[in-house]
Amino acid sequence: MRYIAVFDHFLNRRHRDQITKTAADLGFSVTYCTTVDDLPENERGRYEVLYGNPAPEILHLFPNLKWVCVSSAGVDRHVDDSLYPNPDVVLSNSTGSYGVTISEHVLMMTMMLLRNMPAFQEAAREHRWHGPLPTRAVYGSRVTMMGTGDIGTAVAQRMKALGAASVTGVRRSVKAADPAFDRVITFRELDEVLPETDILVSALPHTAETAGVLNRERIGLLPDGAILVNVGRGTVLDQDALIDALRSGHLAGAALDVMVPEPLPADHPLWDAPNLLITPHISGNMSLEHTCDVDVDLFCEDMARFAAGLPLLRAVDRKRGY
Amino acid sequence: MRYIAVFDHFLNRRHRDQITKTAADLGFSVTYCTTVDDLPENERGRYEVLYGNPAPEILHLFPNLKWVCVSSAGVDRHVDDSLYPNPDVVLSNSTGSYGVTISEHVLMMTMMLLRNMPAFQEAAREHRWHGPLPTRAVYGSRVTMMGTGDIGTAVAQRMKALGAASVTGVRRSVKAADPAFDRVITFRELDEVLPETDILVSALPHTAETAGVLNRERIGLLPDGAILVNVGRGTVLDQDALIDALRSGHLAGAALDVMVPEPLPADHPLWDAPNLLITPHISGNMSLEHTCDVDVDLFCEDMARFAAGLPLLRAVDRKRGY
Repeated sequence: MRYIAVFDHFLNRRHRDQITKTAADLGFSVTYCTTVDDLPENERGRYEVLYGNPAPEILHLFPNLKWVCVSSAGVDRHVDDSLYPNPDVVLSNSTGSYGVTISEHVLMMTMMLLRNMPAFQEAAREHRWHGPLPTRAVYGSRVTMMGTGDIGTAVAQRMKALGAASVTGVRRSVKAADPAFDRVITFRELDEVLPETDILVSALPHTAETAGVLNRERIGLLPDGAILVNVGRGTVLDQDALIDALRSGHLAGAALDVMVPEPLPADHPLWDAPNLLITPHISGNMSLEHTCDVDVDLFCEDMARFAAGLPLLRAVDRKRGY
Repeated sequence: MRYIAVFDHFLNRRHRDQITKTAADLGFSVTYCTTVDDLPENERGRYEVLYGNPAPEILHLFPNLKWVCVSSAGVDRHVDDSLYPNPDVVLSNSTGSYGVTISEHVLMMTMMLLRNMPAFQEAAREHRWHGPLPTRAVYGSRVTMMGTGDIGTAVAQRMKALGAASVTGVRRSVKAADPAFDRVITFRELDEVLPETDILVSALPHTAETAGVLNRERIGLLPDGAILVNVGRGTVLDQDALIDALRSGHLAGAALDVMVPEPLPADHPLWDAPNLLITPHISGNMSLEHTCDVDVDLFCEDMARFAAGLPLLRAVDRKRGY
C-alpha cells in the first residue's frame, strides 16, 4: 500500500469519496487531516503524496515525499527548494480550477469601475437618489490581459463575448493561445500596448520576472481613464505609484484582490485611495463549489499519471516559479 | 420643406450632424431644443416629427404631428391616446439601443449578489480584511429572463457565454428567439419554471398585462437562495413581498434599478431591505456613448422609412403598451 495525505480545508463528502475511490483503484490509501499534527510522527515516513494546502514549513517532515499537489494556482510559497526533504520532490498546482470564479470576479470589478457603481452605492447608503453618472462598458473597450493561462484565457473569453474591441494577451514567450485573444505579445512589447489599453488585468504569478512589472513608468503609459484589475499576485504592482495615479485622476479606478502585504493592515494607505476596490484575496478561493469540483478532478487525473510513472500535467518548474 | 424637432438631452456634435444630414437628404429641416418653450408657438404647427424625450404633456401642442420617436425603450409615459393631437400619430421607441448597457448592468449586479460583494465592500470601508464568504457564479446557474426583446436577448447571450446552465426566456407569446435562449415559454408557464430559477431577471415593460406579474405567490415559488434583478419597470414587482423575502432570507439578494415610486423617497423601506442593491434607474440611461450612437442610428433608419411612407421598424402598439 502507498499513502497520500490530504490537507483538507475545502472538500465535501462527495469530493472525499471521489479521492478515496480513485486512490484505492490505484493502490493508494488516503488520510484526511487539517494540520500536520493530525498525522502521528512515526507514520509520516509513509506518505509519498500531499494534496491541498500543506503549510510550506511542514514539507520537510515527510522524508519519503515524492509529490506535493497544491490546490491553489499560485505556488510562490512552495517553490523554495530548501523546503523539501529532497530536490526530486515534484510540485504541481491546480491551474484549471480557477478560471471560472476569477474571471467572473474580474468582470464584476471591471464593470463596477466602468459604471461608477461605488458612487451609486454610497448614495443608496444615504437613501439618496443619485443622478446619472458617466458610464462605460466592456463592449468596445480595449483589454490587455497579463497572463494567458487558465485564468487569463477565461477572462479573455468573457471580455470577447461581451464585445470588447480587442483583447491582447501578454506572456513570457509567444505561444499558441486561445482564439479569444486577438493577439499575444511578450513583456518586451508591453510598453507599446499600454497606451492603447482601457482595461488592464493582471493574473500574473509572483516570480523573479514578474515582480515590479507594473512599475510607475508603465502605469504612466496607460491612457487617462484606464482601469486596472489585479487578481494575480500583489508583487507585480508598484502600489505607491497606483495610489498616486488614482489620486491624480490619471486612472479612473482600480481593483486589487491581491496586494502587499496580505492581510492589509488597517492603517495602510491603499484602503483610502480613491476609486480603489479592495477585496481580501477571495477572487479565487474555494468558496465556489465548481472550483473544488475541478480541483479534485485535476488532482485525481494527475494521481493516475503519478501511479503510472508518467509526467504530471500540472507540474511546476520551481526555478521559473509557475 | 418638412420639419423635425429634436428634444436633445444626450446628443453630441457628431450625433447632431448625423441627424441634420440624414434629414436634409430626405427633405427635412431639424430644430434642436431642450424644452417646448424653445419652439415659438406660431411655428409648432410645422413639426411632423418629434425625437428624443418630449414631455408627454406637450405632444398635443403640435397640431400636425405624425410621428413621435422616443429615445428610450420604455414608452409607458407616452402610450395614452389622449396625449396626442389625433389618434393617427405614430409612436415609436428606441429598442435596440439599450441591450449592451443594460445587460452589462444586469451581469454586474448578478455577480455582486452571487459573490457577496457588498459584505466585502463594507469590510473595506472599515479597513477590515474579511475572511472568505460563500460564492456562487453565473457559470452553472439557471437563469430565467422575463422579456426576450433587445435587452432580454443581450442578457441571455451574456449569461450563456458565461456558462449559465440554462437560460429560459419568458414572453407574452412564443415566437422565434435568439439561440442564446435554451427555450422560450409564455407567462402561463412561468409558475413551472420559477422553482428551478437561480437568477430571475425582469426587463418587462409596464403594461396592463405585466403589472404585478411578480406577485407574492410567484416570489414564493423561487427556490431558497435565488436572486432577482429588475431593470424593466417597477410595477411588475410586489415590493412589499420582495422586502419580506429578503428579510426572511428566502431570497439571497435582489437588485432593483426600477421601482415605485421613482425617485424613491428617503424614508422608503426598500432602502434598508437586506441584500438589496438599489440603483436610481441608470442601467439604461444615455451615459454610455454607444447607447446614444445606436439610438441616433435607429432614428435615422426609421426617418428614411417615414419619408418613404413605409411602416416604422420600431412602431409601438399603444394599446398593448410596447
